[in-house]
Amino acid sequence: MSPADDYSVLASSPAAAAILTALVTSGPQSRVSLARKLGLSSAAVTKSARPLIDAGYLSELDATERTGPGAGRPASPLTVRADREFFLGVKLTGDELIGVVCDLTAKIRAVSHRPLRSSAVVDVLAEITAMTGELLDGPGNYRERTRRLGLAVSGDVDRASGLVRYSPFLRWRNVLLGKLAAAATGLVVTVENDVKALTTAEHWFGEGAGADSFALVTVGQGIGCGLVVNGRPVSGSHGVAGEIGHISVDAAGPQCHCGSRGCVEAIAGTSYIVAAAGTSTIDEAVAQARAGDPRVTAVFARAGEAIGLGIAAVANLVGPAHIVVSGEGLSAYDLFEPHIRSGFERQAFGAAADCPLSIRPLPFEEWARGAAAVSIQSRLVPLA
Amino acid sequence: MSPADDYSVLASSPAAAAILTALVTSGPQSRVSLARKLGLSSAAVTKSARPLIDAGYLSELDATERTGPGAGRPASPLTVRADREFFLGVKLTGDELIGVVCDLTAKIRAVSHRPLRSSAVVDVLAEITAMTGELLDGPGNYRERTRRLGLAVSGDVDRASGLVRYSPFLRWRNVLLGKLAAAATGLVVTVENDVKALTTAEHWFGEGAGADSFALVTVGQGIGCGLVVNGRPVSGSHGVAGEIGHISVDAAGPQCHCGSRGCVEAIAGTSYIVAAAGTSTIDEAVAQARAGDPRVTAVFARAGEAIGLGIAAVANLVGPAHIVVSGEGLSAYDLFEPHIRSGFERQAFGAAADCPLSIRPLPFEEWARGAAAVSIQSRLVPLA
Ligand SMILES: [Zn+2]
Ligand SMILES: [Zn+2]
Repeated sequence: MSPADDYSVLASSPAAAAILTALVTSGPQSRVSLARKLGLSSAAVTKSARPLIDAGYLSELDATERTGPGAGRPASPLTVRADREFFLGVKLTGDELIGVVCDLTAKIRAVSHRPLRSSAVVDVLAEITAMTGELLDGPGNYRERTRRLGLAVSGDVDRASGLVRYSPFLRWRNVLLGKLAAAATGLVVTVENDVKALTTAEHWFGEGAGADSFALVTVGQGIGCGLVVNGRPVSGSHGVAGEIGHISVDAAGPQCHCGSRGCVEAIAGTSYIVAAAGTSTIDEAVAQARAGDPRVTAVFARAGEAIGLGIAAVANLVGPAHIVVSGEGLSAYDLFEPHIRSGFERQAFGAAADCPLSIRPLPFEEWARGAAAVSIQSRLVPLA
Repeated sequence: MSPADDYSVLASSPAAAAILTALVTSGPQSRVSLARKLGLSSAAVTKSARPLIDAGYLSELDATERTGPGAGRPASPLTVRADREFFLGVKLTGDELIGVVCDLTAKIRAVSHRPLRSSAVVDVLAEITAMTGELLDGPGNYRERTRRLGLAVSGDVDRASGLVRYSPFLRWRNVLLGKLAAAATGLVVTVENDVKALTTAEHWFGEGAGADSFALVTVGQGIGCGLVVNGRPVSGSHGVAGEIGHISVDAAGPQCHCGSRGCVEAIAGTSYIVAAAGTSTIDEAVAQARAGDPRVTAVFARAGEAIGLGIAAVANLVGPAHIVVSGEGLSAYDLFEPHIRSGFERQAFGAAADCPLSIRPLPFEEWARGAAAVSIQSRLVPLA
């Protein structure tokens, strides 16, 4: 069966899409449990699952494969066949493309990096096309089962229209990236802000899975935050949300590029750390701190503390179930972590301090996986 | 028809409750428009509206009473008969009860104040009972059409069980206020945190009506914030949300009762203003500022600025459609307002600055109206 056929399976049946979404995000489940969860009758689940099984998206877990209390019972759980369809994800930075192939459960199957010598739209499109061709025709034979590409870009992105309104690192304004990339690659393309894409990946496939509220804080050149509240992403009525980087935590703090002073980003953003450390690169600053230079160590301590205060503001205001702190800045997370925690603990109000923090580095491929996760989401929930 | 009968009308028909809710919160509408809004057929709306008309909750707007483009068309809009049922609302403070009678559209019909000489639970219950009796049997003859009482308390309240876990001003811990007040008054009682109650009133009946996201910031002894995001109130996974008062905006700022320093509340809470101004009451501080004392004027300026920075954090993180700033502290809002706006404008990131701020004083009766609004809500949406 060709990928074209699957489309009709999902498009014609909201129940089928809901079943596949539940299995993709929450793992194998019996028809009875799916029925309860989705508010459908068991008969409706059985009927809607049939074409998904026929099209190769689902299979029944054999009783002999199961373990645990349910093992041996007649109602075989349904499970996703993760390699039934693949999704490309590409993260665009100012000087590099990072690309991945993911399966239906957002597991990374292949990775590719490609330098960007120019950020002219036409050049970036050519590199995207070359990269996707390389990934699809390389080992793994993904082309036949891949129809979709997710792109992640930092900056102001309108997912619905695929428009990049503004991307500072690429120096783009109002680029209809979705349409251009679809024409160039022949794939169905989604475009999303990179922090939102990563939040989608965590909310659907990671530590935030199933949470009614959740926050992902990214630390790097910028300090960003993706939020899920009342079960849905927060996008901001005026187009701005999650700008934890521009919470002011120090009235006498350094000037920020936004025009204010003492913002979290003006204390903890990579270029501000480099400037405060008086080094020429962040790697140099990390090396000096690790060598025990007290002045540079203090720069990282202050940065971690500022991030902790910003995270406490998130916890005090919206009370997420769980907060993940990650980002390329946290490759040196040993320098940050204790200070992030102490800033958070000092400022979290009452029971807000109970919110668990996961602080961990973020391999750059994860950004590309976020782009693929948005593509998977758009496949399963066309209106998300 | 006695109030007992109405209960069956709403309890037996979710569609009837949805129709009444839509008309209460959004004003008169035709059956066709209600059907579209609620995802019901016109026939279902007509059928469900019938018993509400019979029970006196709804009436048809006569064509001759209507104005505007729809006037004279045959499909008469349905409208709520606001005086069909009344609701009591009482706000409890450390030294006073403020009570109101509201109609179905949360319009205040009667007001009462009563000093609290003791905050012992038994004494407060006696005063609540006396106050509700006085309001119900006074002019207006409300008793016959009133079955519900909403109570609003500052502190940690569990609405579902009517439990006041902690109320600092009353010095209460774990008081089952809902059950006790129901037994004492014979009314159906809801108990809610005062800021959340006020947020409900604004979200259902005020400037936030119909908004998908909305914030209410209250300024007084404490600095609080009620939030609506993705159409629903934000309650916080760990029981804490809206604690704008404990966002730190000044690393070198004054010590806060929460243990941190530089919190918005430690700069702008009433008792901190009084301490910084060196007066013995807030009224004295207001008088000195209005008389032009530059030192006291600067205290209010700094307080307004801190509130503005806190509000900008709300706008940057969740991007509400609209923010209302109010509270008893804003009886002197001329002293705060320009500084709230300048703090907000300096710190709001990009388009977050487009979020409209309404800054206005809050008559104390509005807190009691908030309590009544929660009672109305619990009548119409039992699970809200
Ligand atoms: Zn800034
Ligand atoms: Zn505090």
